[in-house]
Amino acid sequence: MSTKSQDASARLNLTSRAYQKQDSIIDVEGIKIGGGSGPVIIGGPCSVESEKQIIETAEIVKHCGGHMLRGGAFKARTSPYSFQGLGEAGLKYLQKAKTVTGLPIVTEVVAPNDVPLVAEYADIIQIGCRNMQNYALLKECGKSRRPVILKRGFGSSIPEFILAAEYIMSEGNLNVILCERGIRTFCQEMRFTLDIGAVPLLKERTHLPIIVDPSHAAGKYRYVNSLSQAAIAVGADGLLIEVHYKPETSTCDPDQAISEDIFFPLVQNVNKIYNVLNTNIM
Amino acid sequence: MSTKSQDASARLNLTSRAYQKQDSIIDVEGIKIGGGSGPVIIGGPCSVESEKQIIETAEIVKHCGGHMLRGGAFKARTSPYSFQGLGEAGLKYLQKAKTVTGLPIVTEVVAPNDVPLVAEYADIIQIGCRNMQNYALLKECGKSRRPVILKRGFGSSIPEFILAAEYIMSEGNLNVILCERGIRTFCQEMRFTLDIGAVPLLKERTHLPIIVDPSHAAGKYRYVNSLSQAAIAVGADGLLIEVHYKPETSTCDPDQAISEDIFFPLVQNVNKIYNVLNTNIM
Amino acid sequence: MSTKSQDASARLNLTSRAYQKQDSIIDVEGIKIGGGSGPVIIGGPCSVESEKQIIETAEIVKHCGGHMLRGGAFKARTSPYSFQGLGEAGLKYLQKAKTVTGLPIVTEVVAPNDVPLVAEYADIIQIGCRNMQNYALLKECGKSRRPVILKRGFGSSIPEFILAAEYIMSEGNLNVILCERGIRTFCQEMRFTLDIGAVPLLKERTHLPIIVDPSHAAGKYRYVNSLSQAAIAVGADGLLIEVHYKPETSTCDPDQAISEDIFFPLVQNVNKIYNVLNTNIM
Amino acid sequence: MSTKSQDASARLNLTSRAYQKQDSIIDVEGIKIGGGSGPVIIGGPCSVESEKQIIETAEIVKHCGGHMLRGGAFKARTSPYSFQGLGEAGLKYLQKAKTVTGLPIVTEVVAPNDVPLVAEYADIIQIGCRNMQNYALLKECGKSRRPVILKRGFGSSIPEFILAAEYIMSEGNLNVILCERGIRTFCQEMRFTLDIGAVPLLKERTHLPIIVDPSHAAGKYRYVNSLSQAAIAVGADGLLIEVHYKPETSTCDPDQAISEDIFFPLVQNVNKIYNVLNTNIM
Repeated sequence: MSTKSQDASARLNLTSRAYQKQDSIIDVEGIKIGGGSGPVIIGGPCSVESEKQIIETAEIVKHCGGHMLRGGAFKARTSPYSFQGLGEAGLKYLQKAKTVTGLPIVTEVVAPNDVPLVAEYADIIQIGCRNMQNYALLKECGKSRRPVILKRGFGSSIPEFILAAEYIMSEGNLNVILCERGIRTFCQEMRFTLDIGAVPLLKERTHLPIIVDPSHAAGKYRYVNSLSQAAIAVGADGLLIEVHYKPETSTCDPDQAISEDIFFPLVQNVNKIYNVLNTNIM
Repeated sequence: MSTKSQDASARLNLTSRAYQKQDSIIDVEGIKIGGGSGPVIIGGPCSVESEKQIIETAEIVKHCGGHMLRGGAFKARTSPYSFQGLGEAGLKYLQKAKTVTGLPIVTEVVAPNDVPLVAEYADIIQIGCRNMQNYALLKECGKSRRPVILKRGFGSSIPEFILAAEYIMSEGNLNVILCERGIRTFCQEMRFTLDIGAVPLLKERTHLPIIVDPSHAAGKYRYVNSLSQAAIAVGADGLLIEVHYKPETSTCDPDQAISEDIFFPLVQNVNKIYNVLNTNIM
Repeated sequence: MSTKSQDASARLNLTSRAYQKQDSIIDVEGIKIGGGSGPVIIGGPCSVESEKQIIETAEIVKHCGGHMLRGGAFKARTSPYSFQGLGEAGLKYLQKAKTVTGLPIVTEVVAPNDVPLVAEYADIIQIGCRNMQNYALLKECGKSRRPVILKRGFGSSIPEFILAAEYIMSEGNLNVILCERGIRTFCQEMRFTLDIGAVPLLKERTHLPIIVDPSHAAGKYRYVNSLSQAAIAVGADGLLIEVHYKPETSTCDPDQAISEDIFFPLVQNVNKIYNVLNTNIM
Repeated sequence: MSTKSQDASARLNLTSRAYQKQDSIIDVEGIKIGGGSGPVIIGGPCSVESEKQIIETAEIVKHCGGHMLRGGAFKARTSPYSFQGLGEAGLKYLQKAKTVTGLPIVTEVVAPNDVPLVAEYADIIQIGCRNMQNYALLKECGKSRRPVILKRGFGSSIPEFILAAEYIMSEGNLNVILCERGIRTFCQEMRFTLDIGAVPLLKERTHLPIIVDPSHAAGKYRYVNSLSQAAIAVGADGLLIEVHYKPETSTCDPDQAISEDIFFPLVQNVNKIYNVLNTNIM
């Protein structure tokens, strides 16, 4: 179907720079995202596996200079026979990790009916790439008061991505953070092709904060640092990075998560780049 | 996340030729789909717009030799401000069109909670391309007893497509029909690139019926006939075609729907191809 | 660079339907290509390997109903260390195969300086996909009087493909045959994605004959028949197929070439489709 | 054809890290490229248009901190009716610009027979993206003693790109610089999708210097600075940037070239990023 109808073209989209000229800044427990607030680093495992795993990983994230903890309790998996997450038990482990470290929690929701439960535990709700055009889910998250990280579908265009954010915002939730995480192209040496150009394109067309997930694009831990550097240098407001206290034991994507050894200097590096580009002294 | 886990690789997928060697044949009110049952032609508008529109279109579909009527009452639209469908009123109009013409109904479901309602009216439930990896929706359709047409996501690989069908089947509903409808590539002269090779690939790996939607791939009415011919020649079990009694008045995709003038010879053409390839007399 | 300049937009391109409304028909030793002349089948190995190989393969091509023999004496190989073809010796073997079978010869040229030599032996000169925008080569072939098969670059758009043909024609050689052979997409189950929709698009915009190479798209012998059927059903004027008298011994792409067992019924099948679509009796 | 043959797999490719562990450093009139020599900035117009244009642009490039001047005298244009470059006259203007500014010259060659002439004037020969698999041209450049910038084809994979460099090196010219300039994907908001991940991939597999052309990827001047920052942050050894003294008058790609206003701070920005990442003091 065409993306335009008469009433659609008549109104001013809430996502647009025409609607709001200045950058949106989203405040999550005092951490500011967007509008030149400095790079926000969100780290954590793909899935919450156990209390020990999530707490130990959270401590690494905090120690290395990360600002928030991510981890999935409800997972969208390509196969129905893959591990689907710990569900509410996972949310409770995340809560404990927050109590221990003070890091706010980012966690995914995969079904509209789960939104109230997830919103109870999450400081930011994440919508995964496969659900970018799951409109029932977008609308439900739009009714929540929690900020939302919306990941770009790997086959989705920039206008489709922005209109998916519009679905959330049109229900009343203006706190949307866009996340570029790689698109599917003929080039398959990495898992996806990080579309670094999406950052300036999105910055031009929307006032929303943009973060980058280099981990899912790379698919391999050894490319995560360089892609992170590129993301901050191109103008992203933050990073969503897969960190695991013992990557080799990870139940999903063991090749992709990075350990403290890589995460610590990565945070240093991206802060250096951010600072050198955002200060007037050379 | 990786698509494999230990238990996933251990079992035999229900979609696979290893699980079931012979082609599945799905029976919908006496119309057989798959396994050399002849090409099944499903025609109708993108959206149900009015009683008159759907009944008149249904009569055209029937007159031209089509077997089923499709039409959307719940629509997945890229913009929240586009027409979202008539909802249950649309389902009722479809029911009337069935009463008038006898054609079974194919209609889309976009939210897990709507599955029972849609299944009440539909002879086949359709899952659209954007929802191919909406696992909550897939599972809910898996609990229904209605056959399901699962459309391939425009950015989805063949293995992901098959695993999405597995989600439905693993919940107990074995009546899944796969639908290739074009993928997103650099080539954008048509709306999508019809991946004609997906048909033999899917035939090789699964026992499920495969149909093709040439309308959404083409995006223009004038390419629909030739792509339909290609689809049947490559081995598809049927076609899902956008037909409208007055395409120029269509509320969505007016350039894409075909009228009786094109649909009538199209049905003739694909039947000719099917018959000449499936008889031993030249 | 932009593809437009003032003088470019002012003139009527030789490739366009605006320049010539009716289909071009190219005559090669009495075999007509284009304009509804029936499907022209060109078969043969990727590379000429020996006199025995090319003559035995030519006899299979003829016996099965093929119209021309293809085989490469000069090869464009991805690696400099791969077999680069037999050169002039290969051309001489092709000439012998023509003497034995009467089949006209299609063979590739890869360097501008080789055009006169190749044109001496070839009935049709082939320009491979990697050279579609090798403008020095296109111009040199434009100065030849031999018809040219121009293969589409796997990353090339339809307008770029047509403008590459324009390079040849603008030098005076109007006998250009376009060949769709698959494009590069995220979907890599086959070697390339056959862009079947390119055929109606090219038919609409140019008057040139269009053939399809299903072998390089498929990359696997077992998909060649179904893609060939699709190609003729979508409206192609012919096929360029990799045939080998002993595929398992082929020096390049042994999985891709088909043997007599597959080629014979394939020719029958595509003729059936062509005939049923081009006669008024059902 | 397959990219492998027995002899190909047996030998050690000259491009590989297995053949040479440490980074290659290429010296062009005292300017070092690769191996941590600092970012090399090559700027200049797409085409040499006049003596005045190239000299004034060269002076801007020098003034802003650029190291070399690029400009095309022989152009590969999509349409045969577009401006094809000034030829040898253009080379002479480049030579004058070098005399005036001292900047070494990078200029493109499009035909094998032109290599000796171009090599006489050029300090670095450029092979454009459309010619990446023009093997006759690669071999001829391999016989030259001039360093070569090899641009990646927009539809070419990483292994194909590296093997194209191997063609040059296997003829004896080891001074090859790889240039990522964007690939063709479904995402067409920019002209091409800059494959930023190609840089770490190429760094891992080859010892050759890697530069990035952000201008052809962006297609719009206003994205060039941010993509340049990303390129240096990801680890590129330099940049190839379209600079024009009066972009609005450029005969090709007027929207793409940047003027002094953008180029001056761009050079500052990428130097800041390079320095902050390559010093131990924060």
